[in-house]
Amino acid sequence: MSTILENVNFPEDIRGLNQAQLTQLCKEIRELIINTVLQNGGHLASNLGTVELTLALHLAFNTPKDKILWDVGHQTYTHKIITGRKSEFRQLRQNDGLSGFPKPSESVYDTFGTGHASTAISAALGVARARDLRHEDYQVVAVVGDGALTGGMCFEGMNDAGHSKNRIIIILNDNKMSIAPNVGALSTYLTRLRADSSYHRFKDGLSGFLKHVPLVGKPLAKGLETLKNSIKYSVLPGALFEEYGFQYLGPVDGHNIKELCKIFKRAKTMEDPVLIHVITQKGRGYENAELDPQRYHGVAPFFLEKKTVDEEHALSFSTAFGLGVTRLAQMDERIVAVTAAMTDGTGLRPFQQTFPERFFDVGIAEEHAVTMAAGMASQGLRPFVAVYSTFMQRAYDQIIHDVCLQKLPVTFGIDRCGPVGEDGETHHGIFDISYLRSMPNLTIVSPQSPAELMEVLKLYDRIQGPLAIRYPKGYGPAKAPAPKIVPGRWDVLREGADGMILAVGQMVPIALEAARLLADDGYAVGVCHARFIKPLDEAMLSRLINRSGWIFTLEDNVLAGGFGSAVLEYLEQRDAKLHIQCFGFPDTFLPQMTIDSLFDQYGLTPEKLKNTMEYYLELEGKGICNDAG
Amino acid sequence: MSTILENVNFPEDIRGLNQAQLTQLCKEIRELIINTVLQNGGHLASNLGTVELTLALHLAFNTPKDKILWDVGHQTYTHKIITGRKSEFRQLRQNDGLSGFPKPSESVYDTFGTGHASTAISAALGVARARDLRHEDYQVVAVVGDGALTGGMCFEGMNDAGHSKNRIIIILNDNKMSIAPNVGALSTYLTRLRADSSYHRFKDGLSGFLKHVPLVGKPLAKGLETLKNSIKYSVLPGALFEEYGFQYLGPVDGHNIKELCKIFKRAKTMEDPVLIHVITQKGRGYENAELDPQRYHGVAPFFLEKKTVDEEHALSFSTAFGLGVTRLAQMDERIVAVTAAMTDGTGLRPFQQTFPERFFDVGIAEEHAVTMAAGMASQGLRPFVAVYSTFMQRAYDQIIHDVCLQKLPVTFGIDRCGPVGEDGETHHGIFDISYLRSMPNLTIVSPQSPAELMEVLKLYDRIQGPLAIRYPKGYGPAKAPAPKIVPGRWDVLREGADGMILAVGQMVPIALEAARLLADDGYAVGVCHARFIKPLDEAMLSRLINRSGWIFTLEDNVLAGGFGSAVLEYLEQRDAKLHIQCFGFPDTFLPQMTIDSLFDQYGLTPEKLKNTMEYYLELEGKGICNDAG
Repeated sequence: MSTILENVNFPEDIRGLNQAQLTQLCKEIRELIINTVLQNGGHLASNLGTVELTLALHLAFNTPKDKILWDVGHQTYTHKIITGRKSEFRQLRQNDGLSGFPKPSESVYDTFGTGHASTAISAALGVARARDLRHEDYQVVAVVGDGALTGGMCFEGMNDAGHSKNRIIIILNDNKMSIAPNVGALSTYLTRLRADSSYHRFKDGLSGFLKHVPLVGKPLAKGLETLKNSIKYSVLPGALFEEYGFQYLGPVDGHNIKELCKIFKRAKTMEDPVLIHVITQKGRGYENAELDPQRYHGVAPFFLEKKTVDEEHALSFSTAFGLGVTRLAQMDERIVAVTAAMTDGTGLRPFQQTFPERFFDVGIAEEHAVTMAAGMASQGLRPFVAVYSTFMQRAYDQIIHDVCLQKLPVTFGIDRCGPVGEDGETHHGIFDISYLRSMPNLTIVSPQSPAELMEVLKLYDRIQGPLAIRYPKGYGPAKAPAPKIVPGRWDVLREGADGMILAVGQMVPIALEAARLLADDGYAVGVCHARFIKPLDEAMLSRLINRSGWIFTLEDNVLAGGFGSAVLEYLEQRDAKLHIQCFGFPDTFLPQMTIDSLFDQYGLTPEKLKNTMEYYLELEGKGICNDAG
Repeated sequence: MSTILENVNFPEDIRGLNQAQLTQLCKEIRELIINTVLQNGGHLASNLGTVELTLALHLAFNTPKDKILWDVGHQTYTHKIITGRKSEFRQLRQNDGLSGFPKPSESVYDTFGTGHASTAISAALGVARARDLRHEDYQVVAVVGDGALTGGMCFEGMNDAGHSKNRIIIILNDNKMSIAPNVGALSTYLTRLRADSSYHRFKDGLSGFLKHVPLVGKPLAKGLETLKNSIKYSVLPGALFEEYGFQYLGPVDGHNIKELCKIFKRAKTMEDPVLIHVITQKGRGYENAELDPQRYHGVAPFFLEKKTVDEEHALSFSTAFGLGVTRLAQMDERIVAVTAAMTDGTGLRPFQQTFPERFFDVGIAEEHAVTMAAGMASQGLRPFVAVYSTFMQRAYDQIIHDVCLQKLPVTFGIDRCGPVGEDGETHHGIFDISYLRSMPNLTIVSPQSPAELMEVLKLYDRIQGPLAIRYPKGYGPAKAPAPKIVPGRWDVLREGADGMILAVGQMVPIALEAARLLADDGYAVGVCHARFIKPLDEAMLSRLINRSGWIFTLEDNVLAGGFGSAVLEYLEQRDAKLHIQCFGFPDTFLPQMTIDSLFDQYGLTPEKLKNTMEYYLELEGKGICNDAG
């Protein structure tokens, strides 16, 4: 049986369809998305919510001449399917497959790459300014979720755009959620805009307005308040956006293609910047996701879910973090937890349930999360701020300027360090050692297992000052002998006369396995768990200087400015001429690939490390090292 | 003759003064500020604008129990003078003297340290949450300028605060400027709020509102628009802030202490978060500054200004940048310039005057500046984004995620690299090499003189991708032989058999002088201008590996992850055992001190470098190096 989707490859293929055909097409696209995501993993709920919206955009706008910029970009599956990438869609998020986010190198329909939130308005304004300077004529549309709108960058962009009057159209895709239900005053505001039925009755202003006039006769504060709110949401819907210089249109049903096209066409005729308020439902068309869109925001591939269930002893680092902080908080009432719209992702749900009044989800707003925590710490609280490594990049300045400079006792749970796999280039956490270790006053710890992470958390009260704990995406044994953590001290886990691998975090088990393989080949190489990335264990390093053999450093970060680089700096200070080789990621953005494939591709599996290390060990044996000094 | 100020040391000393005495006190404080700033340099206009506001805050609030947080903090001189620091005030911004910004280590009245913009609302919310969790009872007040309000973090903070209802008071200090006249839609909005006289007439809402009702009779779009705006600014002033969950009070005259105290006392009784709109005049009470507040925003000490005038041949790096970009823009119409509220500071005024339509001041919004530029570059423009090193920290993620990942041709003018002197700890640009060099696809160049900077700018079209040009605060010869810049290649400026100094940027002349001093002592040490920090000149480095003698690296950045560290990484890759020592700043926040004093304190003057280098050169001569490998 032939389907509509079969004949749809590019936007022009949908422009001739009638309403019934479009409805059928939406159904078929949803099936493709659901089947693919259940197989490959991906963002399910957000993509099911934007099927009609995407079709309407490509119907009303002349893409690719008109440019659409997708904020975050985790809602672009329909867009990909109907812009020449339907046949590759089954390879979504696979090694060498389609990205789960917009990517200009994939298609001319992807104007600007995204992955992190709140960038689309700024980028769209840049595109519009390029257009206007060159006297070109096309539309620029930024599609922004209500969650992304909690990021301050959106307001920096709106402030500039509303003033400069370069024509852009913002589609506010309001599904009442970012990943979790949305938080903050803006969310409340949008709810009121949505709920106020008087808007629809009174949208032409005049007649509705007159109905309120009798109320004026009641000289009561209460009456005035009612009047004020009625005016606000009937005569002046979207006042907030209008104050920023935007014309506000909507709200409009984001699952009604006809209505959407109508409002988009109206927006195209307007001279000012426009914001169109579109209401969508996350998970639309897939019952499980409609009922629990948060759970179906990001979905692991079906087979992975199964694997996890099989290993009952396995605990994720994130879960360990959440449980550990919750336990500590039971003993220390100064402890509070802060997340930027990632209650589940960072494992903080148990904390939130146990201590709702000590838990703060600030929305997608990492900068604010860090500085707010600094404010708390300045008054004696002990905040734990949990953010993914890649998103913590947003708060680089706040960690330096508001936390480290003031030596405030804020503990950072830096989750998803190292490669993250299928989310790809924008999401790998491979820069955090480099960006954190040049910050004065910061202690950086890298536990090797979830069990150790729970021990390391206890340092929050022993380290006087800011503490960053970095840990990867992934699982480890739920129970393991709890190591004794001595601040600043590393642990030699295996001795070896021919060399020593200094490994951080998740690389420790890999180093141990590499050492075992080397032993099989007759090389005695030791492994040291370099738990503290900053400060280095100088006592240990000074012992290593006085022995022969190679030093190998091993990290899940880029080599530029990373852990190995810190060891090199120490050796330079001592003018120590050791044979040393650093292993980690090269100076590049890692592609979208499973974590295992990435370790393999960059030579960081036990087998490949063994081979490379043997090469160096043999060099020394042959006495051909370059000792120019 | 005794003055009022003579007897004022702490807030309690002003609480008994009458209006006439307060007026006199304001006059005396202004004199002290003007005299001190003309001598020491500092922020003049912003401090003259907040004299009455500061007194009113300390009168109406019970400081230090009630906590005041100052955004940016460049308006706190009056606050310092009346909180126990009057006698030290003459040492403002001097080595070991008072900071020009709030600093908790200076006084219990300084709740939270600042220096960068837009952090106070977030920090204040953190303080208020600490208070509420501990069931304490005090007021928390954030003082935020209308300039700082263009930073997105403020909206992240308001979104969270307005929702959570922890009681905070925001004082919006509206002087229509950040440093330059303020830009953006918010600025327009505030101007309307200020200008709308109907606010004052109708502020009780009801009577004023009724006067508008007859208008409703005119069924004209025009009439409706007028009605709408009248409602907006009479019945609903501050709607924007109210949508964020804040009660809006004001506007109020910021130079009327009595009115200010009245409104502050009213705010203290309110349960919800409150925003008080205060109108002040920058430069108030000093005619020059009132007439040209932008010029008097930051003032160099009088004697410095004089010195500059004397040396007519001197050109600042910032001026060279602005002139250079303007010249290039005359030949290439794809070039645009972007600044974040720093048109003069970054030297871009001539560009703005020559190409107003190609110049974009986005307000204090570094994140937006970078991503907006990325949007422009994605459509073929060639943006130059000029931001100070310390403020560029704000856009760390945007440089990675929006520019480098997409290899977009954005050129960053990273001004004020290295120590900046009197602005102190929060402002030194000593991290940029570390934070930039781990970003893939980025080229980093460090010219040694303003003349060379102008040459280096021409690389924007030769380097395919993002380009960061870093240069210091300071001056150099306006005319110098223009060096021939070969991408990726370093220049040996002086040969020497005993060693080679690899120096970046402003350290090159220092290295040359150190080499001359070493020559006097019989050591032949060469100097190489390591113009490209990334990529390194590997051809040059590989030549150096094959010669004897020391390598010294010299940079104006922290050593952790800096330029020297990059050289160490190269040597490690080659397993080259050179004698190398890296010179730069240690792992600490540099104190407030003149640039010369900082170089001296950290051993980076030619004399001190000579002494340290001699120590190492002698070591090698004596054969006592530690060659353990």
